[in-house]
Amino acid sequence: MITWNNLDTLASFQDLKEVKTVDLKDVMSGENGAERVKKYSVPMAEGMAYNYAAKKVDDQVLEALAKLAEEAQLAEKFETLYNGAVVNTGENRLVLHHLTRGQLGDTVEADGVDKRAFYVEQQNRIAEFAQKVHAGEITNAAGEKFNTVVQIGIGGSDLGPRAMYLALENWAKKHNTFKMEAKFISNVDPDDAAAVLNSIDVAHSIFVLVSKSGTTLETLTNESFVKDALKNAGLDASKHMIAVTSETSPLAKSDDYLAAFFMDDYIGGRFSSTSAVGGAVLSLAFGPEVFAQFLDGAAEEDKLSLNKDLLKNPEMLDALIGVYERNVLGYPATAVLPYSQALSRFPAHLQQLDMESNGKSVNRFGDPVNYATGPIIFGEPGTNGQHSFYQLLHQGTDIVPLQFVGFRNSQIGTDVVIQDSTSQQKLCANVAAQIVAFACGKDDENRNKNFEGGRPSSIIVGDQLDPKSLGALLAHFENKIMFQGFVWNVNSFDQEGVQLGKVLAKRVLAHETDGALKEYSDLLNI
Amino acid sequence: MITWNNLDTLASFQDLKEVKTVDLKDVMSGENGAERVKKYSVPMAEGMAYNYAAKKVDDQVLEALAKLAEEAQLAEKFETLYNGAVVNTGENRLVLHHLTRGQLGDTVEADGVDKRAFYVEQQNRIAEFAQKVHAGEITNAAGEKFNTVVQIGIGGSDLGPRAMYLALENWAKKHNTFKMEAKFISNVDPDDAAAVLNSIDVAHSIFVLVSKSGTTLETLTNESFVKDALKNAGLDASKHMIAVTSETSPLAKSDDYLAAFFMDDYIGGRFSSTSAVGGAVLSLAFGPEVFAQFLDGAAEEDKLSLNKDLLKNPEMLDALIGVYERNVLGYPATAVLPYSQALSRFPAHLQQLDMESNGKSVNRFGDPVNYATGPIIFGEPGTNGQHSFYQLLHQGTDIVPLQFVGFRNSQIGTDVVIQDSTSQQKLCANVAAQIVAFACGKDDENRNKNFEGGRPSSIIVGDQLDPKSLGALLAHFENKIMFQGFVWNVNSFDQEGVQLGKVLAKRVLAHETDGALKEYSDLLNI
Repeated sequence: MITWNNLDTLASFQDLKEVKTVDLKDVMSGENGAERVKKYSVPMAEGMAYNYAAKKVDDQVLEALAKLAEEAQLAEKFETLYNGAVVNTGENRLVLHHLTRGQLGDTVEADGVDKRAFYVEQQNRIAEFAQKVHAGEITNAAGEKFNTVVQIGIGGSDLGPRAMYLALENWAKKHNTFKMEAKFISNVDPDDAAAVLNSIDVAHSIFVLVSKSGTTLETLTNESFVKDALKNAGLDASKHMIAVTSETSPLAKSDDYLAAFFMDDYIGGRFSSTSAVGGAVLSLAFGPEVFAQFLDGAAEEDKLSLNKDLLKNPEMLDALIGVYERNVLGYPATAVLPYSQALSRFPAHLQQLDMESNGKSVNRFGDPVNYATGPIIFGEPGTNGQHSFYQLLHQGTDIVPLQFVGFRNSQIGTDVVIQDSTSQQKLCANVAAQIVAFACGKDDENRNKNFEGGRPSSIIVGDQLDPKSLGALLAHFENKIMFQGFVWNVNSFDQEGVQLGKVLAKRVLAHETDGALKEYSDLLNI
Repeated sequence: MITWNNLDTLASFQDLKEVKTVDLKDVMSGENGAERVKKYSVPMAEGMAYNYAAKKVDDQVLEALAKLAEEAQLAEKFETLYNGAVVNTGENRLVLHHLTRGQLGDTVEADGVDKRAFYVEQQNRIAEFAQKVHAGEITNAAGEKFNTVVQIGIGGSDLGPRAMYLALENWAKKHNTFKMEAKFISNVDPDDAAAVLNSIDVAHSIFVLVSKSGTTLETLTNESFVKDALKNAGLDASKHMIAVTSETSPLAKSDDYLAAFFMDDYIGGRFSSTSAVGGAVLSLAFGPEVFAQFLDGAAEEDKLSLNKDLLKNPEMLDALIGVYERNVLGYPATAVLPYSQALSRFPAHLQQLDMESNGKSVNRFGDPVNYATGPIIFGEPGTNGQHSFYQLLHQGTDIVPLQFVGFRNSQIGTDVVIQDSTSQQKLCANVAAQIVAFACGKDDENRNKNFEGGRPSSIIVGDQLDPKSLGALLAHFENKIMFQGFVWNVNSFDQEGVQLGKVLAKRVLAHETDGALKEYSDLLNI
């Protein structure tokens, strides 16, 4: 029997607040620190590990977190989710993104079909389509092969797929699975579409229009932009476009598209990278085999999220440490810092995934909560961040918990030895150094050169960023955020906070404004 | 007589805390809201305006802020800075970036020269060099014109110039001043350099090595990377590289470079976009005339920052409202939200500019401060952010003050009419709508669809993003951050917080580790 209770009603949460806090600087110094690095680590998929030695936890805190996980029924709630309960209560929807990469539990039927079979069918249809494009069986009207794929979508139809594309672009080129360059048009700013269109050869481009409802204004506007460009080039737009949409959308059976691939209401935009939303563009760019590996990595990590033992469940553990930092230690933000240039847009994707899921003030029943929920998420790749905002992270007046990601090997493999080390070694040395610098600090009589330390971080370490480890990394954060939503008792799968802006923007465009809205409209010459 | 006092010692700060706070939802509703939009606006350079109607201020708060500005001697401190005082006390340096774009006060002599004349001389040398490259007078060894410029630098040598390049790329293409494509190599991750090198034609590329000291490890490493690539292509590296460095650096007079252009210790990396650091790459990419316009815009805004009347000084006003939000209202972060795809990396630059300048816990004398200093800065372009993290901004448990930027016109001018409005109108309608949605909210019986409002924002509005308005925008934020540093009594011009990581990374690479550092090194196979 699952009960959905607010965090502050749980006895285990009250107990957690009573546990003595950890002096990070103290515990991470000397041989004790070395022991922690060995001990506070949990295996992830694909040989990766989530290491939380530099978090403000010890056995007592972890024990209290395990009790909280149990009382909050995190494992049971995940189970009910993947078995097809209506966990997205606000929108009365199932939450099925895990089914795009595997069957964790019972067969889930909805809309009269087995949903796992439905998602696999779409993957197979996409794979077949992509193979025909790559083989030159589907071509432009002149019978020439397409060489570029352009995704038209916004929010979850943009950030996730774009981050994944950038993460694998160099890997695919190195491994000869790179098929087509991908570009992305998202913003309603006309300069976004215009600049992308100016940078490509439209005659050899295929466009993927992504909109679940088929009514997203930004996306339909950018579709028109693209159709104008195709028309101006003397091309038949319907021979250059495919749609990713729901079966009930106006796009689903339109002659305007070469093909339509389907998603459904059970996968929110920000959780859709493993659905047809990511599948079409990534399969076209890298081949369906690479996309399948990406799904395999995610599926493998999903299985680890099932573990009821907190210390063997990297996602649940990461989630609970985050809750501890947010609700007991009182930290308002988390920085995501991948030491991998290929993950340059991964923080922007996590920003949506996390802040849109858990940036809520009411619980799943619509009642206000009396505690902090989702934190601010931001980040940039290291080592770039080190030469930028790390100053504040090291010596600012607020403590910001850090989530590092690092890989032992680069993707391309080209390297150079300077001062007896490769660039890859320097990269890894920097992330190791940063963790210790943040945790332990360094005393200096000159207070301006003093580092207080006590600044917590974790690191996910892997061998290499490849399709499988990327899938596992994505699933890690998706599931972490889901577990945090369970703890905070919010609905992580709706986004009512985006609605008011839409309503008011329509009013501005219809010139139905008064008061401040009218003045701002005038100011902007609308 | 200037006195450098901590914020919490100022009587006007204590008075500020006593002023009644503004109910934003209340004051922004109805005709009063319209009046505020008209009244709470201050002109900026290039026809832009800083509008702060949706901030939690009224005449009483503004009066108290004006007293704070006076007691903190902000105008006098700026005056002493641009007249050449050693304001960067920690490093015993003058702070002269304003001189790269104009002479605000007295002639400043340092190192035996007039520094304004020195910066102008470097601009002229760069202009001459760029014109020769564009005219085909400086070519590769085969006598062919260069078509690509690649900046090698990190931190301030990367983020600012990159953001400015992206901001003007489409404008320059539209106005036929686009001369060469620019690329950037920054990260020590070997995949960064390798991917950029794989994407360009090295035989027709000119590289700009940027390092003030000539010793930045990441940058020198990436230089070697590039030299290897040039050598492998059978090319003479010295015919493809220029340096931007200080006159005393080992790079200054080396035969390894076609030319060297100079900066000095009086311009910090994050304030160097208007120096040779930005000048070389931007002049090569867009022509020196465009770079000169960029400087003109910044110079014009600098002059507005001189105004002693708070309500006529957009930078001082923005700074003080930020201090009020941070130290009285207690908000830990600020989001920067440009409604312009061309400003896609402007938030990343501001993140460095702000967090590295004011993320300090000690005052300029090295004594700990008892109040919050620089906030977390993050952001992405709207409308993309609306479909992402805006959920938390609207309905999350924490309030995040917002800094919007919007332009009435697009850069490229290509547009499409859908549902009776252009994309540019939709873009502008969205930012107008968001300001009001955040400020006023909307009551709904369904608490999940309820918007509390009371979330403060400001907007900088301009006609178009062009070289001049971009320069003004940059100067606005540079000067805002400077004024905030004065209020907080911190040294905004050093960055001791980046040092410890460097020291520990060196230790890792030398295998001189123990404890946790050794374990992390092992974990990462270093």
